[in-house]
Amino acid sequence: MTKPMFEKIALIGIGLIGSSIAHAARRAGLAGRITAAARTAATRETVRRLGLADEVYEHAADAVRGADLAILCTPVGSFGALAAEIAAHLAPGAILTDAGSVKTAVVRDVAQHVPEGVHFIPGHPIAGTEFSGPESGFAELFDGRWTILTPLPGADDSAVAKLKAFWEACGAQVEIMTPEHHDLVLAVTSHVPHLIAYNIVGTVNDLERVTEKEVIKFSASGFRDFTRIAASDPTMWRDIFLNNKEAVLEILGRFTEDLASLQKAIRWGDGDRLFDLFTRTRAIRRGIVDAHQDTEAPDFGRKAAGAKPERKKTA
Amino acid sequence: MTKPMFEKIALIGIGLIGSSIAHAARRAGLAGRITAAARTAATRETVRRLGLADEVYEHAADAVRGADLAILCTPVGSFGALAAEIAAHLAPGAILTDAGSVKTAVVRDVAQHVPEGVHFIPGHPIAGTEFSGPESGFAELFDGRWTILTPLPGADDSAVAKLKAFWEACGAQVEIMTPEHHDLVLAVTSHVPHLIAYNIVGTVNDLERVTEKEVIKFSASGFRDFTRIAASDPTMWRDIFLNNKEAVLEILGRFTEDLASLQKAIRWGDGDRLFDLFTRTRAIRRGIVDAHQDTEAPDFGRKAAGAKPERKKTA
Repeated sequence: MTKPMFEKIALIGIGLIGSSIAHAARRAGLAGRITAAARTAATRETVRRLGLADEVYEHAADAVRGADLAILCTPVGSFGALAAEIAAHLAPGAILTDAGSVKTAVVRDVAQHVPEGVHFIPGHPIAGTEFSGPESGFAELFDGRWTILTPLPGADDSAVAKLKAFWEACGAQVEIMTPEHHDLVLAVTSHVPHLIAYNIVGTVNDLERVTEKEVIKFSASGFRDFTRIAASDPTMWRDIFLNNKEAVLEILGRFTEDLASLQKAIRWGDGDRLFDLFTRTRAIRRGIVDAHQDTEAPDFGRKAAGAKPERKKTA
Repeated sequence: MTKPMFEKIALIGIGLIGSSIAHAARRAGLAGRITAAARTAATRETVRRLGLADEVYEHAADAVRGADLAILCTPVGSFGALAAEIAAHLAPGAILTDAGSVKTAVVRDVAQHVPEGVHFIPGHPIAGTEFSGPESGFAELFDGRWTILTPLPGADDSAVAKLKAFWEACGAQVEIMTPEHHDLVLAVTSHVPHLIAYNIVGTVNDLERVTEKEVIKFSASGFRDFTRIAASDPTMWRDIFLNNKEAVLEILGRFTEDLASLQKAIRWGDGDRLFDLFTRTRAIRRGIVDAHQDTEAPDFGRKAAGAKPERKKTA
């Protein structure tokens, strides 16, 4: 039997990302053992029932003992306290990383606690669904997606290479950048889009002249796409916005400027301005499909979900 | 052989919606003959090659001659001129309807041209994909989706009932409302969401510090969902915004108010305000899935599209 890449992987937090890492690491035989830490008894019970880890603990300190790879997979607002808790229990030579969606705040909160000899390499797998919790994970989540690593100046090259190899073995492609650039890129590709989706769903929910029932019925005309994103985990997203304030506000400022200009074009009936924008935006979709970052099937390839029962009711 | 619901259905414009109506009407045997009008020779050639219609003409007037159902399926900005062109050629007792995404402007532009004895009943099938053109249509497009009819005061009940039956036989559910209410509902569920999607894709496209390549690579984190919507037909969407100005600007005003308030919450680190909104927005997603207006599969059930070829390149 070949030796696995890591003897013991500790997953601190085992929701969608933590459980998907467990599945992907198992699929590729990357871990001798997997331990997990979960705060609630209900989650620990689910972990046991699904066999997601060899041992599951209430306290992160217990999970990381003897691990050569520890991954923080909780909402980023909890990282500082967790790092303080596990610091003394991390083995020399171990890699400490995370799956958080912001990176400068994670460096700020975690680095100060990391003991000499432990390799702290912040990371972010760019993958997810709108579902949360240990039952929502699956081995293929990272396949073909990107994981960004943001090693600090002076990081150990071989530790970075090993973590890169880990993510590649989980199916991902790996890119290295600075924490600051990561936070700007993600503000653009993820944080502001989520904020806008949450906002439009909130706006629609508050209308008096259009009922919720109407919104639901006619949502296939565009709105429903936003509701998927706006169904993502509230704690995770609260923590992201609190911890990537600067980049989010910068991109949001540009978005609202552009929207004001578009609003004016509509008010003044400037059809050419609208047509130009709507033509330009088509190209980027093509780029995403060509880069295999989305399906080319119409409407994401989704099925006319259970349409028939509803039809029968009205027939 | 039973008599089909209509002897001759004329489709004025045969893009995604027109060709899907052709497929759906054939599937249910609703038409004795189908004729189509398409301005370009290329589209007429495609219609012939795919056998989408029994005859295809350059001029709408030729297509509607003898039809007992004529459906305007072009961008709404063209309806006034088309109505003027076909008016004299519509048979008494025929139903004239449309598939336009706005309704008050369609009533304004079309009703004045409709001759006595022709039943003009505006309509809107709430269905589509991001693809355009006669090759993008399919019979199942309307299955389980809603079609809204907005008959004018004094409309003939039996003609409305017949058009309702037509859409139901095409797989849709039918709802009746006023043109004004339709335009408000669609501003909410479709027009403003599309505008926001176009806008964010435009904003992202204009950034200097994040490259287009990065945007594409990391788009799976949320952004790609918006690019699908922002890849919709530019002419169709230009015409929608020019013709539903009032409702779009009203809903957009509310959206930007709410966004300003959310922006402030981020600036001041008001996590509770963010958490509350993000929790509230989850419920409406559930409602949409329960009403069979979207799939419950994670991530719209989309496949990790062709991930592997990309992965091999970097390995």
